[in-house]
Amino acid sequence: MLRTGRRTAKGVAGYDLTRLFVGSEGTLGVITEVTVALRPAPAQSLTMVAVFPSTAAAGAAVAEIAARGLTPSLLELLDQTHLRAIEAYQPMGLRTDAQALLLAAADTGTRAADDLADLAQVCESAGADEVYAATDAVEAAALLQARRLAHPAMEKFAADAYPGGNGGLVIDDVAVPRGSLAALLDGVARIAAECDVPIGVVGHAGDGNMHPNIVVDRADPASLERGRRAFDEIMRLGLDLGGTCTGEHGVGLLKRDWLAREIGPVGVRVHQAIKSALDPAGLLNPGKVL
Amino acid sequence: MLRTGRRTAKGVAGYDLTRLFVGSEGTLGVITEVTVALRPAPAQSLTMVAVFPSTAAAGAAVAEIAARGLTPSLLELLDQTHLRAIEAYQPMGLRTDAQALLLAAADTGTRAADDLADLAQVCESAGADEVYAATDAVEAAALLQARRLAHPAMEKFAADAYPGGNGGLVIDDVAVPRGSLAALLDGVARIAAECDVPIGVVGHAGDGNMHPNIVVDRADPASLERGRRAFDEIMRLGLDLGGTCTGEHGVGLLKRDWLAREIGPVGVRVHQAIKSALDPAGLLNPGKVL
Repeated sequence: MLRTGRRTAKGVAGYDLTRLFVGSEGTLGVITEVTVALRPAPAQSLTMVAVFPSTAAAGAAVAEIAARGLTPSLLELLDQTHLRAIEAYQPMGLRTDAQALLLAAADTGTRAADDLADLAQVCESAGADEVYAATDAVEAAALLQARRLAHPAMEKFAADAYPGGNGGLVIDDVAVPRGSLAALLDGVARIAAECDVPIGVVGHAGDGNMHPNIVVDRADPASLERGRRAFDEIMRLGLDLGGTCTGEHGVGLLKRDWLAREIGPVGVRVHQAIKSALDPAGLLNPGKVL
Repeated sequence: MLRTGRRTAKGVAGYDLTRLFVGSEGTLGVITEVTVALRPAPAQSLTMVAVFPSTAAAGAAVAEIAARGLTPSLLELLDQTHLRAIEAYQPMGLRTDAQALLLAAADTGTRAADDLADLAQVCESAGADEVYAATDAVEAAALLQARRLAHPAMEKFAADAYPGGNGGLVIDDVAVPRGSLAALLDGVARIAAECDVPIGVVGHAGDGNMHPNIVVDRADPASLERGRRAFDEIMRLGLDLGGTCTGEHGVGLLKRDWLAREIGPVGVRVHQAIKSALDPAGLLNPGKVL
């Protein structure tokens, strides 16, 4: 039984084992108990949407928001595929002619309205067709609903795309520096066309973290193969743009080779040395990550 | 050559080696190059001081600030020993009759004045004799000057305390949960009396991280021994209060035994396993930390 971390706000006693175990995906030990710190609840947040005629314009807006040092508490992107899937799943008046929608929130209390106005101005300068800010908390919550429906709507879209209920999603998770978001979005559109698979993109634009959802027919080996190729091409593109193969979902089995490529041979040796030191018999989640 | 970290805002690919190396004090490798992320510059900050008739009242104010979820950008404490040392070093009208002074800042832009008012109210409720807020940036900077002089003033105090220029400081670095700050301050005063050594306390109250400065005569073995005993008693008190033996200064040679006590035998074994995995020949900063 190893206990890591501390109850103090600060501390530098010994190695940061908590951070080493978080994200190790069970390969270094089994976490049996977690104590979390509480942070102050944020003030009421305000929300806005910006509608873009191109993904490049939406990507440029995100890059400019980061460059200006604006810090929205939420900055999410939905592409046209998602907008159409959501509108088909539950009509809510989304602009399905738009190529991309950015959803932003500010939770800075009395300053939130000013922060939203700054975000709106950046979106307009970057070429947004339309910017709409919620005027109260109820409306702000309503604007977030589209984002919440993104996953079930895409599942429905995939199920409907192929006969016999065999349509499904391969959900990717790639993050790039925020300045490269437009290049990532353009590249994913090119990969979708080249591999001949539908791909919708949704994600955490403010983190440069996108989830390309690749639509495949699970009953058709050719469709699965095209989906796998698209998945690999997206990984390659993400790394070429200076990004990472996983922003938040982890490595598991699917991305072991991409992790090795991302961290390089020295990185792999250091990972293996740590793994062997803490799990010499290789009992812990064998075969995963490394 | 190992490269760790990433250029993206987020990422979970592999073990968090950056965090493992940061704070390893050269025992796992030699850091040859560091790339840091830039954060937006904060808005202009405003500053206030609160003067307390007891360290317990100052500690209670800090606990209440944390409990209310207030987040000052700076919250520093100076005890009476420091106030007197600073006033002797460079007279600036500090209240040397006070037992403790809290210095707080808020950098929340248009909201900073409101935030300072909340902090002032908490300090008054906790028993502050006097609360004074800066009305502009120049005055705010002036209030910070006392804190900046704390170290040279205490060095001068120590040099003057013993003949022949042999007076010096043993600077400790202990952090406790913020709710235990008052108990830490009371305990340090008790230890100073019991060990018969002058101890001034200064530090980062908002982090629960204090620097007891133990004044010793480097030419007098008995004084050094009393200082060493006080140092150990403070470490013991910090751990008993649920704290850590080092908030920010690190372990080095001086706190190896206290680190072992803090992390326990399993923690030590895990540290040694990682150290051996990355430095099997024991070449890296030998004898330190572990």
